[in-house]
Amino acid sequence: MTAPTPTSPALETDAVVIGAGPVGLWQVFELGLQDIRTHVIDALPQIGGQPVELYGDKPIYDIPGLPVCSGRELVERLMRQVEPFQPQLHLGQLVRSLAAEGDGRWRLGTDRGLNLLARTVFIAAGVGAFQPKRLKVAGLEAFEQRQLFHGTAEPARFAGQRVVVVGGEDSALEGASRLATAHQDAPAQVTLLHRRDAFQAAPDTLARVRELREAGRLGFVPGQVTGFTPSGERLSALQVMGPDGETAPLPLDILLVLQGLSPKLGPIADWQLALERKQLVVDTEKFQTSQPGIFAVGDVNTYPGKKKLILSGFHEATLAAYAAQPLVAPDKPLPFQYTTSSSRLHRALGVDNPR
Amino acid sequence: MTAPTPTSPALETDAVVIGAGPVGLWQVFELGLQDIRTHVIDALPQIGGQPVELYGDKPIYDIPGLPVCSGRELVERLMRQVEPFQPQLHLGQLVRSLAAEGDGRWRLGTDRGLNLLARTVFIAAGVGAFQPKRLKVAGLEAFEQRQLFHGTAEPARFAGQRVVVVGGEDSALEGASRLATAHQDAPAQVTLLHRRDAFQAAPDTLARVRELREAGRLGFVPGQVTGFTPSGERLSALQVMGPDGETAPLPLDILLVLQGLSPKLGPIADWQLALERKQLVVDTEKFQTSQPGIFAVGDVNTYPGKKKLILSGFHEATLAAYAAQPLVAPDKPLPFQYTTSSSRLHRALGVDNPR
Repeated sequence: MTAPTPTSPALETDAVVIGAGPVGLWQVFELGLQDIRTHVIDALPQIGGQPVELYGDKPIYDIPGLPVCSGRELVERLMRQVEPFQPQLHLGQLVRSLAAEGDGRWRLGTDRGLNLLARTVFIAAGVGAFQPKRLKVAGLEAFEQRQLFHGTAEPARFAGQRVVVVGGEDSALEGASRLATAHQDAPAQVTLLHRRDAFQAAPDTLARVRELREAGRLGFVPGQVTGFTPSGERLSALQVMGPDGETAPLPLDILLVLQGLSPKLGPIADWQLALERKQLVVDTEKFQTSQPGIFAVGDVNTYPGKKKLILSGFHEATLAAYAAQPLVAPDKPLPFQYTTSSSRLHRALGVDNPR
Repeated sequence: MTAPTPTSPALETDAVVIGAGPVGLWQVFELGLQDIRTHVIDALPQIGGQPVELYGDKPIYDIPGLPVCSGRELVERLMRQVEPFQPQLHLGQLVRSLAAEGDGRWRLGTDRGLNLLARTVFIAAGVGAFQPKRLKVAGLEAFEQRQLFHGTAEPARFAGQRVVVVGGEDSALEGASRLATAHQDAPAQVTLLHRRDAFQAAPDTLARVRELREAGRLGFVPGQVTGFTPSGERLSALQVMGPDGETAPLPLDILLVLQGLSPKLGPIADWQLALERKQLVVDTEKFQTSQPGIFAVGDVNTYPGKKKLILSGFHEATLAAYAAQPLVAPDKPLPFQYTTSSSRLHRALGVDNPR
């Protein structure tokens, strides 16, 4: 991974939080109580991180004070708490580079050209950035962003084209159905490609796909991509090995890979921060990494006794916020106060008339 | 403070939690997830500790996932979470002694003669045991439990007696009103004694006291107790200095001191555990004190970076529970599992059909 050249002027800020999962959100809250405003970056196009992406509707039982709550509900509750502090959200982008400036600040660059200059950085990246699972066929990457897309692409790209959608779960079936029934920018042809004629998806989605296939509006090819046929600079066909072991070409204009997401630690491993088994090593006083001003909280860090629990991340983010305050405002020390009784904190939280 | 002779046979248990505040309750929950059943002891007659005793109706804003909640509500929510693990509660008693047995277990004794033999002990005592504020008059303690009572006493003690209630806040005013309107075991006379004719209490309580005074059912004497008049083994009168500086005797049979509660670290300081500024020193891996098997969690402990926050106590109790498991069941190691996905934990929590 190489650091991209910044393509926009740097935004200066006191704090950047990498990761918009529960712990990243709580980091925003605790920094807010310390009078520190934040920018938040996440690879996913929406807030919530792992609990929303991996178990949005599943119950969590070990958040203190919430006898049972889904990942999605927990995130909604945290978003309400974060509201008074209005974090600047930068979603759907990956932090590529993190480098020290001469003056003690840190420069961050994302894959979409965002460029931030920050006093403090909080890595709340969980198990890593969620990125689309890729089709592992050597040489295919040459067509990326022209004919090969992962996860998302603008519908206009598909207008009048022969589109092959790869995948066998909800996202692939939903994507294929949407394209097959598009009114605007409709493709000429939509074909679903999966290794066998069996899918894992919600009953409604399965039913819709069945209907579209019966109506001839959605094609299906069973098999696995083993290679491809280039034609000059273009990808003209995939080589698909069917269940019978025979390989046949599948002509196409667009290849849309919707195999879901998987987390990757990614560039974090290249930032010269002390690591232990791919986790960022932190102290338990400040939850600071081996670099001053860079903190790591939640599942991404490690220390003696560490358990990958959301509630531990909440504690870590809290102490990290206290440790960051003197770095951000060395001339404005804040006394330790409680949200129950502090009028400064009531103003910060926007609760003028606490009950 | 001396250790009382145990007056009942020892109850054997895997874990004792000292303190039934939010962190003590969470300790019960996390120990429950580790298959460890608990006995819980608290000096107060009810569950909830500091948040209920000191700010029951005040809002707390920094519990993750609860944008706003009162101390009482937080405790009610935690009690629901603790329910599946059915802790044995021993309320209204103070742990007096904690001493090592030869076999690595700990023996605890309370001021009400409870005697426990435990593999692990979790001190979640917050700012200490809440104890009634005492009247500071030398020699008065000789009448304790005969004519002098703090906080509570059996109503039968007051039947036909001249009772003086000392205090100027809710508990004194409520106590005096209750006695003045008692049907059973009614005192012969009830007098409220406070340094001036001005009280801090809920409007309803103030109004009731005013009514009772106007009706002649409740007496009032302004002043401070400076001494007393004994008569043989009995206390026959208090010496009360009025606002005018004059001292006059106030005859009585019963002196009920209702000046509220204040927390005291109390006997904990005598247990040979490492202390730093009256806090128990713990590590940040297990939150264990200087004695193996004795953990300290919540406001009572200290370590580098410590903040006295409820959410930090939740984290500490969680790691302490993980550290305790191999001490309690060395032959039954438990794998790290999530409440979202573990069927063992679902059984423990009594959620057979997780949504």
